[in-house]
Amino acid sequence: MSSPPDTDDLVRRAREGSPRAVARLISLVEDAAPSLREVMAALAPHTGNAWVLGLTGSPGVGKSTTTSALVKVLRGRDLRVGVLAVDPSSPFSGGALLGDRIRMQDHALDPEVYIRSMATRGHLGGLSWATPQALRVLDASGCDVVIVETVGVGQSEVEVAGAADTTVVLLAPGMGDGIQAAKAGILEIGDVFVVNKADRDGADVTARDIRSMLSLGERREAGDWRAPVVKCVATAAEGLDDVMEALDKHRSWLGEEGRLTERRRRRAAAEVEAIAVTALRERMGDVRAGQGLDELAARVVSGEIDPYTAADQLVDAVS
Amino acid sequence: MSSPPDTDDLVRRAREGSPRAVARLISLVEDAAPSLREVMAALAPHTGNAWVLGLTGSPGVGKSTTTSALVKVLRGRDLRVGVLAVDPSSPFSGGALLGDRIRMQDHALDPEVYIRSMATRGHLGGLSWATPQALRVLDASGCDVVIVETVGVGQSEVEVAGAADTTVVLLAPGMGDGIQAAKAGILEIGDVFVVNKADRDGADVTARDIRSMLSLGERREAGDWRAPVVKCVATAAEGLDDVMEALDKHRSWLGEEGRLTERRRRRAAAEVEAIAVTALRERMGDVRAGQGLDELAARVVSGEIDPYTAADQLVDAVS
Repeated sequence: MSSPPDTDDLVRRAREGSPRAVARLISLVEDAAPSLREVMAALAPHTGNAWVLGLTGSPGVGKSTTTSALVKVLRGRDLRVGVLAVDPSSPFSGGALLGDRIRMQDHALDPEVYIRSMATRGHLGGLSWATPQALRVLDASGCDVVIVETVGVGQSEVEVAGAADTTVVLLAPGMGDGIQAAKAGILEIGDVFVVNKADRDGADVTARDIRSMLSLGERREAGDWRAPVVKCVATAAEGLDDVMEALDKHRSWLGEEGRLTERRRRRAAAEVEAIAVTALRERMGDVRAGQGLDELAARVVSGEIDPYTAADQLVDAVS
Repeated sequence: MSSPPDTDDLVRRAREGSPRAVARLISLVEDAAPSLREVMAALAPHTGNAWVLGLTGSPGVGKSTTTSALVKVLRGRDLRVGVLAVDPSSPFSGGALLGDRIRMQDHALDPEVYIRSMATRGHLGGLSWATPQALRVLDASGCDVVIVETVGVGQSEVEVAGAADTTVVLLAPGMGDGIQAAKAGILEIGDVFVVNKADRDGADVTARDIRSMLSLGERREAGDWRAPVVKCVATAAEGLDDVMEALDKHRSWLGEEGRLTERRRRRAAAEVEAIAVTALRERMGDVRAGQGLDELAARVVSGEIDPYTAADQLVDAVS
């Protein structure tokens, strides 16, 4: 059974770089379409080439401007670039450009840049499941670098960063940024910290705060990565060389001693586990629909069996 | 293998009403002890007798005072009463009385009243799992009524209410209470709404607001329960008869047409499902420890297989 357009054809066209085919595939991810399984199987042999850059930070720090500036630098190296803007809170379906995506218009006519917003609200399995799949689509479609930008804050930042090879935490001058970062748990996830809007008062203070908070938790073992803190003014394209240098260094570091493979392996393990748990839950749903779970529950209520024994039987039923 | 004190002995003494045995069993629930399975199996035949009353509301509405007043009324009927105060945010272990539990001292010397605070932070499976187990302990120990009081707010209120036969939502006069209630989702969970501190200004407005918000979502089918809104002043024991009348009516309604059994069956089904999912996750953890998941993840990273195929194999491995 194949649905129009045919999956193989869609994957083939996406691999040739067709933006429409890529868009269609990411929509399938957003919709958690049943054909995803087939799509992912077809994409698998063509993945693993893209460098995935995560970019995260609180609202107003200049994520879109910085992404746009980084895209420019990467295009200067003649690299094919994908941008995935993940908005965990938005109910709007993908494809549509978000308001601040407009700043990305610099690259709108460049066929070697693919920009896409993705809404993940309501996605079965949530953000942590949709993002790696969308990344796999962009990876297989020939992007050399994919930038994943989160619009959300807090837990979603951490989750999206978890999908990246190199995570950039973007900050801006302002009181309490260091504390905020520590609270949000982003100190742990940042491989490179960038203080944007460095022409404003307080940029040095912010950079120093982050450095000192990082040094508190720093590992002292040889070979460990020490997250650098660099400054830039994305709107004026100032300091971008420093940012890219820090990113390149991290990429080189990742390439040594099998670190990149290890990091990706851990990510894949979490993804596989999430899919497996969902599959088992679905089977339990089938058991529920088939009255199996209801019967077990009725026996628990009557005191005939305890919940653990009932759970054992439920596990047996789905196994 | 049996641990001292022996489970059977502990269960026997709890059933005889020993407060120390009950305390020990609830501590096992808090700690998610491995022996819980054995405990629950031993308790199962002795459960299903207690009427579980959930009491929830924002901080400051007078939950402890109202609980204490209700205990007094129930003791007047010569019923054995258990009180379980669930604090989802507290890191403090159970047994210790929380600050505002002091007001419950009225009943501290009554052997027919068992009062217990339970911390659920860090409990594997969380609140939704620990609460029904603790209720089962109190139920089997001969309580005729168990009042579950939540100290927390928001989602935890909804979860605790989900464990009750009859849920009381407690309110106090004050602006925006109706809106707050709607936001927190407690309009849906309340079987009886009680406006406490009814001697204060605004009590009538609060009661009217709740009534009108309830009427918006009201089901019109014959036999459906219409949640009443009653007023009381718990500190002065005023209006308690009205509250009890509303609670008794709901209990009678539950007793008709198998509604109580149906409600408990739904709850048991959710509990059994949660235990089963946790068991399967643990097996996946074993697979992970045994390198099975790591190997699958490595094959995903290399593009040899896709995550769905890997998940299928993981499911097979734990089945």
